[in-house]
Amino acid sequence: MKVVVLVGGVGGARFLLGVKSALGLPIHGESPEAAPHQITAVVNTGDDVQMHGLQICPDLDTCMYTLSGAIDDAKGWGRAEETWTVQEELAAYGVEPDWFGLGDRDIATHLVRTRMLRAGYPLSTVTEALSARWRPGVRLLPMSDDRVETHVVIDDPEAGEGGRRAVHFQEWWVRHRAGPTAHAIGPVGIEEAAPAPGLLDAVKEADVVLFAPSNPVVSVGTILAVPGVRDALRETSAPVIGVSPIIAGRPLRGMADACLTAIGVESTAEAVGRHYGSRTADEEGLLDGWLVHTGDESAVPGVTVRAVPLLMSSPEATSAMVHAAFDLAGVRT
Amino acid sequence: MKVVVLVGGVGGARFLLGVKSALGLPIHGESPEAAPHQITAVVNTGDDVQMHGLQICPDLDTCMYTLSGAIDDAKGWGRAEETWTVQEELAAYGVEPDWFGLGDRDIATHLVRTRMLRAGYPLSTVTEALSARWRPGVRLLPMSDDRVETHVVIDDPEAGEGGRRAVHFQEWWVRHRAGPTAHAIGPVGIEEAAPAPGLLDAVKEADVVLFAPSNPVVSVGTILAVPGVRDALRETSAPVIGVSPIIAGRPLRGMADACLTAIGVESTAEAVGRHYGSRTADEEGLLDGWLVHTGDESAVPGVTVRAVPLLMSSPEATSAMVHAAFDLAGVRT
Repeated sequence: MKVVVLVGGVGGARFLLGVKSALGLPIHGESPEAAPHQITAVVNTGDDVQMHGLQICPDLDTCMYTLSGAIDDAKGWGRAEETWTVQEELAAYGVEPDWFGLGDRDIATHLVRTRMLRAGYPLSTVTEALSARWRPGVRLLPMSDDRVETHVVIDDPEAGEGGRRAVHFQEWWVRHRAGPTAHAIGPVGIEEAAPAPGLLDAVKEADVVLFAPSNPVVSVGTILAVPGVRDALRETSAPVIGVSPIIAGRPLRGMADACLTAIGVESTAEAVGRHYGSRTADEEGLLDGWLVHTGDESAVPGVTVRAVPLLMSSPEATSAMVHAAFDLAGVRT
Repeated sequence: MKVVVLVGGVGGARFLLGVKSALGLPIHGESPEAAPHQITAVVNTGDDVQMHGLQICPDLDTCMYTLSGAIDDAKGWGRAEETWTVQEELAAYGVEPDWFGLGDRDIATHLVRTRMLRAGYPLSTVTEALSARWRPGVRLLPMSDDRVETHVVIDDPEAGEGGRRAVHFQEWWVRHRAGPTAHAIGPVGIEEAAPAPGLLDAVKEADVVLFAPSNPVVSVGTILAVPGVRDALRETSAPVIGVSPIIAGRPLRGMADACLTAIGVESTAEAVGRHYGSRTADEEGLLDGWLVHTGDESAVPGVTVRAVPLLMSSPEATSAMVHAAFDLAGVRT
């Protein structure tokens, strides 16, 4: 079976473990050559950022490390058994930014990636090269080889009454813990971005497409904003199933509600389902099915909604979620 | 007193400790604001190399770390209490080169430098910025802000009988331990290189100029090849004193003899002294005095030669060498 999953970072990566498990594949590492299943993860790159001259792709790395078992499980990002010598030294030099965690093991990844990008390789090729070491068992596809940067408009007291400024998503999210109200959130450069090679074909040829319970604005939403992706999703013969990241009015993880507020969407499973919309009833919609958490039963016109436990407390629990999504899609593994 | 010293890496850095000591300055770290002495180290940058996208200046860093007391004393290069996590990870990715030691602490220096260079700052400004942390107590001046790379011509068995190829100095020196015969050694780009801002003025205004006992070919020799430097040395009113890196027919440290052979100079104190030549008796020469090791008494026409113990076994011993050089120059501290 060919499964395409739209994912962001931590939540998306954990969801992918459940997809592997649901398909009977080893959770960590490579899939057997003879495996009858193919998973393509389309990964958000709007969070990508350059720090200290290094090109950092947080969501791609979180997926890569999680799927290979090299992730720091407690934090959800970065490498297990990480050390922080370089970062301490950068702090001793007093260079900015000092608020973004850059572990030593992780830096090696960024060095390899940055060097390959500077040599002219597109990000999708670089990701494939890095995956040759990690063997994630999933094809990791950046949403685009083109640079897209999600920016957030916040108040700027220094610019006088009513003054505002745009900051990189990471500055708002990591540095300010999504504290300042986001007046607007947008992926800069998205109009000129092309889908990564193979992305549209993967959607077209899929047996089922899943939206991971990732941030509907800055993760899945950014992928959907890449020109051509929405059309491919509306045109594919595969059922498209979304998994709600909102549970009892709270995001599964992180601060997704702050992003939803910025785009005028309530932090409820129903509102997010309606935001994605129906492929049939809605001219712009994308979903055939919408999986919500038990108790979050919702009405999304034109979309089959089903409620099951949605807490990704273990790969087994996540696997059960994915099975429910496959059921909802009417596909059999 | 204004002292200008031409230096390479390990030997040059240790010699600078002796210069500080001879002038009554603290060996490590900053000099007192009121110190009546100024030391300018003109540092070879022909060994500079890019590895994994990082701009590395081995001699500048060795001087900076040595003068601040942060050097790994046993190795003579790199940081004390260094860790090697990034390098291990790069090896796990299988990326080349894998033969150049890149410690984690050291990598932070390269990241700061590379970022500043990419932002458009010249190397001399970058070196000043890095020195703001290390406070070497010596003005560290790269020989040039322009890129110069020392290349070495060696046999290339793969290119057939008599085939040769040029490799970066570091590849020959570090990777091959100067094993393959060097048929030629030359600083690529030197014709277009300009002396770093302030270099020629420092030589002009100096009270004494010293050649550290660094490699006469790839360290001091490369500095001397920067257009304008030889003329400034010949024209300065300051006495110019060289310190022999050859002791009893063997280099003080390292594999300098392999370099001397490549340019047709014997590995003796006398031959190196004659290679530098006399400011008065020789139309192209540079020295007024030549300090050799006890037992290496030499005849260098037009140059006053003096023999003293030249082993830099401790900053005190090195300080005595520098005192002897000052004596030979006729300057008083």
